[in-house]
Amino acid sequence: MRWAEGFIAVDWGTTNRRAYRMDTSGKCTAEFEDDKGILSVPKDGFPAAIADIRNRLGDHPLLLAGMIGSNRGWKEAAYVPCPAGIDDLAKGLLWAGSREAIIPGVSYLRNGRADVMRGEEIQLLGAVAAHLVDPTGLVCHPGTHNKWVTLRHGQISEFQTVMTGEIFNLLKEYSILSDLLQGEVEANGAFKQAAADAIGEAALTSELFSVRARVLLGQSKKEDAAAYTSGLLIGTDVRIGLSIPTAAQISVIGRPELTKLYAAAIGQAQRDSVEVDGEKCFLAGAHEIAKRI
Amino acid sequence: MRWAEGFIAVDWGTTNRRAYRMDTSGKCTAEFEDDKGILSVPKDGFPAAIADIRNRLGDHPLLLAGMIGSNRGWKEAAYVPCPAGIDDLAKGLLWAGSREAIIPGVSYLRNGRADVMRGEEIQLLGAVAAHLVDPTGLVCHPGTHNKWVTLRHGQISEFQTVMTGEIFNLLKEYSILSDLLQGEVEANGAFKQAAADAIGEAALTSELFSVRARVLLGQSKKEDAAAYTSGLLIGTDVRIGLSIPTAAQISVIGRPELTKLYAAAIGQAQRDSVEVDGEKCFLAGAHEIAKRI
Repeated sequence: MRWAEGFIAVDWGTTNRRAYRMDTSGKCTAEFEDDKGILSVPKDGFPAAIADIRNRLGDHPLLLAGMIGSNRGWKEAAYVPCPAGIDDLAKGLLWAGSREAIIPGVSYLRNGRADVMRGEEIQLLGAVAAHLVDPTGLVCHPGTHNKWVTLRHGQISEFQTVMTGEIFNLLKEYSILSDLLQGEVEANGAFKQAAADAIGEAALTSELFSVRARVLLGQSKKEDAAAYTSGLLIGTDVRIGLSIPTAAQISVIGRPELTKLYAAAIGQAQRDSVEVDGEKCFLAGAHEIAKRI
Repeated sequence: MRWAEGFIAVDWGTTNRRAYRMDTSGKCTAEFEDDKGILSVPKDGFPAAIADIRNRLGDHPLLLAGMIGSNRGWKEAAYVPCPAGIDDLAKGLLWAGSREAIIPGVSYLRNGRADVMRGEEIQLLGAVAAHLVDPTGLVCHPGTHNKWVTLRHGQISEFQTVMTGEIFNLLKEYSILSDLLQGEVEANGAFKQAAADAIGEAALTSELFSVRARVLLGQSKKEDAAAYTSGLLIGTDVRIGLSIPTAAQISVIGRPELTKLYAAAIGQAQRDSVEVDGEKCFLAGAHEIAKRI
């Protein structure tokens, strides 16, 4: 590792960022998280936003992942096409400065179907390197935009994005369902029933309105509406993800509060899954990239 | 008709209102439209908002339809359950004052499926009375919340709401697709292709993200993104609406710029449809109710 002093790994998304000081063995020795996602940083404000990270975690080299490398971020790191392994990401690093490297996203393009990811690739391939997932398996990576990813021999072979998290947030924030969706979402009975319904039949935009009608006509409790709506969206998501029949192990990588919901919905489709902490995968992936610098 | 002087009919929705002065023969003699939808009126502001209408169109009795009768409106008019005909609406009028009647909405509840409408019922049954639609047929009524309505013997027999318009507006206003969706939506090639795709296969929340990926990877033009996204949403809507096989005539009632898009998408499902102007239906319906007062 050229970075003998260690480095700082940053998972820099749209609405927040998490920064970790890493030693050369791959151990995290300090960290912080804040809401300085790329949308809160003016176009010419990234050098200052990066200086702020070094003020807090030390003057070390930086390895940056996520939307920071998009056309709305600091500098655009071209996508690495599928199939993509950890070596491909290392080769595709964009050096934004002599001590600042941006990890590229991954693109998928076949038969006219197009898809992209930024930020998930490092977690996925970190999980492979750390033996946290089957290197030939199916991975679900929930977040604002959930990804269903087929791994083959440790590489990202193909994937599909589902806008579940963003649609839920839009409905909660701005829609006619807004006042019904402020409650907690749990993998309770309402969630599981809605997930099972959505896995069985595909009519999401229709079922969503029924959330309101059911409450108005006394068919369901207002307190259940958020879990029910989340169940409809995540169930639809699982139906899409499992539409290609596979016997492979399903891993769900991400924040525990989200992986729990997806695991419950996958259970409604009579499939098992294993939940994996996304942060652990990120650190493993950053360490693997740093070893190759 | 008790209202021998004529009356004012108001189609009072969430974000705007349209008011028409009607003579006893059912002819509209004056009208206006503004953005004083119910959400812009404070809870105790409806008497003033109504005085404003009379200032502009004369001191006549008022027949009010739409969200004005909801729990967010002036006074709540209880839903009339399906099957519902024009006489049921007339019997269900809520007299908010001695010269102000609110037309009730219609509810549907069967086998645990719940749905509601407010404002469409008067257009649907007005269209029946004016012989603008087949009294036993399938009607599509696009708007913020599209309704697929089965008419039987001139009554609203059952219906299903699809949140197409609202989802499109949320995506256009607030989502990651926002900058791509500012263009005009036309029933062009991109629209028709997306509608055909969505009618054929159901993966809306997944296909929506592909709008962005396709532009990023050079697979489609940015200028086509709005029409493409609208095609995905309306195609999904048509797939839901036509999921119960029917040989009945399909009528599309609403604003011409919307009925045109739905007619084009229905065409992609190899079905014919007839476009009917929603305003004409509203006036016919209001006249029928007034005759029964």
